Amino acid sequence: MSAGWFRRRFLPGGPLPAPRPPRPRTSPVPYRRPRFLRGSGSCSSTADSPRRPEARPVRCPARGRALPWNAGYAEDMGVSLKGHGSLPGLRIINAEKSEFNEDQAACGKLCIRRCEFGTEEDQEWLTLCPEEFLTGHYWALFDGHGGPAAAILAANTLHSCLRQQLEAIVEGMVTTQPPMHLSGRCVCPSDPQFVEEKGIRTEDLVIGALESAFQECDEVIGRELEASGQVGGCTALVAVSLQGKLYVANAGDSRAILVRRDEVRPLSSEFTPETERQRIQQLAFVYPELLAGEFTRLEFPRRLKGDDLGQKVLFRDHHMSGWSYKCVEKSDLKYPLIHGQGRQARLLGTLAVSRGLGDHQLRVLDTDIQLKPFLLSVPQVTVLDVDQLELQEEDVVIMATDGLWDVLSNEQVARLVRSFLPGNREDPHRFSELAQMLIHSTQGKDGSLTGEGQVSYDDISVFVIPLNSQHQGSSSH
Amino acid sequence: MSAGWFRRRFLPGGPLPAPRPPRPRTSPVPYRRPRFLRGSGSCSSTADSPRRPEARPVRCPARGRALPWNAGYAEDMGVSLKGHGSLPGLRIINAEKSEFNEDQAACGKLCIRRCEFGTEEDQEWLTLCPEEFLTGHYWALFDGHGGPAAAILAANTLHSCLRQQLEAIVEGMVTTQPPMHLSGRCVCPSDPQFVEEKGIRTEDLVIGALESAFQECDEVIGRELEASGQVGGCTALVAVSLQGKLYVANAGDSRAILVRRDEVRPLSSEFTPETERQRIQQLAFVYPELLAGEFTRLEFPRRLKGDDLGQKVLFRDHHMSGWSYKCVEKSDLKYPLIHGQGRQARLLGTLAVSRGLGDHQLRVLDTDIQLKPFLLSVPQVTVLDVDQLELQEEDVVIMATDGLWDVLSNEQVARLVRSFLPGNREDPHRFSELAQMLIHSTQGKDGSLTGEGQVSYDDISVFVIPLNSQHQGSSSH
Repeated sequence: MSAGWFRRRFLPGGPLPAPRPPRPRTSPVPYRRPRFLRGSGSCSSTADSPRRPEARPVRCPARGRALPWNAGYAEDMGVSLKGHGSLPGLRIINAEKSEFNEDQAACGKLCIRRCEFGTEEDQEWLTLCPEEFLTGHYWALFDGHGGPAAAILAANTLHSCLRQQLEAIVEGMVTTQPPMHLSGRCVCPSDPQFVEEKGIRTEDLVIGALESAFQECDEVIGRELEASGQVGGCTALVAVSLQGKLYVANAGDSRAILVRRDEVRPLSSEFTPETERQRIQQLAFVYPELLAGEFTRLEFPRRLKGDDLGQKVLFRDHHMSGWSYKCVEKSDLKYPLIHGQGRQARLLGTLAVSRGLGDHQLRVLDTDIQLKPFLLSVPQVTVLDVDQLELQEEDVVIMATDGLWDVLSNEQVARLVRSFLPGNREDPHRFSELAQMLIHSTQGKDGSLTGEGQVSYDDISVFVIPLNSQHQGSSSH
Repeated sequence: MSAGWFRRRFLPGGPLPAPRPPRPRTSPVPYRRPRFLRGSGSCSSTADSPRRPEARPVRCPARGRALPWNAGYAEDMGVSLKGHGSLPGLRIINAEKSEFNEDQAACGKLCIRRCEFGTEEDQEWLTLCPEEFLTGHYWALFDGHGGPAAAILAANTLHSCLRQQLEAIVEGMVTTQPPMHLSGRCVCPSDPQFVEEKGIRTEDLVIGALESAFQECDEVIGRELEASGQVGGCTALVAVSLQGKLYVANAGDSRAILVRRDEVRPLSSEFTPETERQRIQQLAFVYPELLAGEFTRLEFPRRLKGDDLGQKVLFRDHHMSGWSYKCVEKSDLKYPLIHGQGRQARLLGTLAVSRGLGDHQLRVLDTDIQLKPFLLSVPQVTVLDVDQLELQEEDVVIMATDGLWDVLSNEQVARLVRSFLPGNREDPHRFSELAQMLIHSTQGKDGSLTGEGQVSYDDISVFVIPLNSQHQGSSSH
């Protein structure tokens, strides 16, 4: 999330927001020393870390155990955290726009256990032996809004939801092709229409597990926030390395990219009111009661006012990619369902993202109009076939919250990566140092790096994941 | 559409379709001599043409004049058809799967007139002088199903709908950036939230006009078919060259590609029950009554039967890109909303496309379950900035109905184009000859060309549009 009015995702007070003209990104603002979290793959903080919120015990759905804030993760996942240098670097900055850091993160080893054929879910897990476990790695960034509560819950919960989902299908994942029946039972009727099967790939199962895990985590967060009287939501960006593939699941406006010597490849897309305009307008078309007569579904190039009545003005509706003209009626003068552009774009005048976790209680200020029906918790999942890449030592995946991408383009980040890593081959902490350097370059310390000297006042979290070492350690063992 | 049971889009009789196992594309089938239409940019037929359907007069919505089947088009659009060689080649083949050719086409010059500021729509058009018209070119392919009626209506109607839409916004198109108010009126209030405007481009207006024209044409077809007691639908693929850009609008499973010396670029995507699965499932989720209790919204790798009850099987719902397992309940045994894969995929067991024109009366056989609510008439529009290309003489756009693409890949078509054009520079008919050669290569005459010797038994239509000459003639004059 961005700092102050410059870019607030969640507007906590006042009337329906009247977007101010965008402040130029290059405007000179006093530099404030950032506070860094130096992680070793998990979110353990250093003396330099921001103040923690009061740790409320959070119930972990997978085990029913209480977990303190942002800890206990390693144990819960069977994580064996490696030391600095061998694990990808993580840096988090609290830009102090809020008292607590709304960015949260989690990472660790993912151990998926195997259950016996045909047993019930609540039956004892059959632990054959450690070598038969399927293992992978997990990294996650959560960018909170309306407080850190949802992001903290997500950092404590999502990996457990994912492990549960994966354990439920692990029998289908270890075969060449997932069987139609999870039990391996074969039905071979004579009628050909019941025989021909679509070819489902193992990666389709992992994608399905990620989608289900996000949704389950969203439900957990909804229950927990309601029970504890807290509010808020968060975006979620997750990378999972499993069976030689890297899965990147995104719900929100964080971003992951692959940086190689000759290639920069986006591994995620952002979900905002602008990028999901048609889905959101379509929903308001089907369920107009969601707008309670206070908003207009239509998009206009700017907000309309009385003088526009009867004029032919540009507009777009849910079925349109292009623009057309329409005669302005009185109902068109209402506040738009999606308003503003770029960083200023807001859903129902309130929220700058259209996917994420939480926000179950979020309403348009002073109304009963809910945001949640317009939000999706399901992520979009991209699959990178790491086994098919001829990996170089300095091939990395960069995951970061929007604060970084507001200031640096994919190409600029790639240039920084390529200029930093080759000269620091002997540094065991070089991936963590790179994450820190990327954040530094958004703080106005080195304008020449960004080309623009642009400055970010948002909380920023960055993971640097080296694919080469990760690849070696991510296979089933 | 495909021939016979091999690939029927519309199943005209019998019980709910039991998909047969796919017939291998390479299977030997007796060759049947194709019948060619040699066009000069329009659909005028030669002595070798297939039998025409009884020409029913069709009312043209733009002018209210009755047009005979597939004629009168040039006059209506102000088209000045050029001779062979200067106009893109068109070839149509009737594979004789139906008595009448369900493929229809139209092309010609598009003259957009200008109306005076502020006048009403029904007022006299102000013809300043011919030089002030905005002109472009138009090509369209329509692949009918359930008879040729909808395709014929579309070939007679869509260009008029498009011209009307473009004339309604032409004042916005001739400025550098479309104005917020079509009248040019400027409202400049002091409140900044009413001032900042999104930057809309001229091409966004043309995209909007194409989207509206498709929808209007669909309504016309619905009225005309009902009035004349006819049925059927068609896909629509349209290319419009205007102001230095080529707009490709697609609703259905035809395809357009750009072929250059070093590049093959898709200019359209196909819309089928498989490619639009999530949209269609989502609709059934929101409006379950559309399935009348006879279909299941869920997707399974194959159709389920009684033996599967209680088993955990693979499935997908509307919110899922990946697959998961679920326990089979009785309702899952119903016929699937989308069933089959590839060429065999059908919506409600009936239709192989998910976008197009017509089909207003189409129902699942022996039921009242309508197909139309699941179909979109709105196209997806791709814009090719021809002015930005360094055009070579042999850069072409290939538009063709699915019969061609079922047998030839984009790369195979590109190889055929590159092998044919350079050796035929002096032939004034070379683009038409190329279109004919492409169709020939789907008829099993030259297996080495396709690499597979695959044969198509579908009606096929091909436009070859040379960008270089088109580019010169497409600017405003």
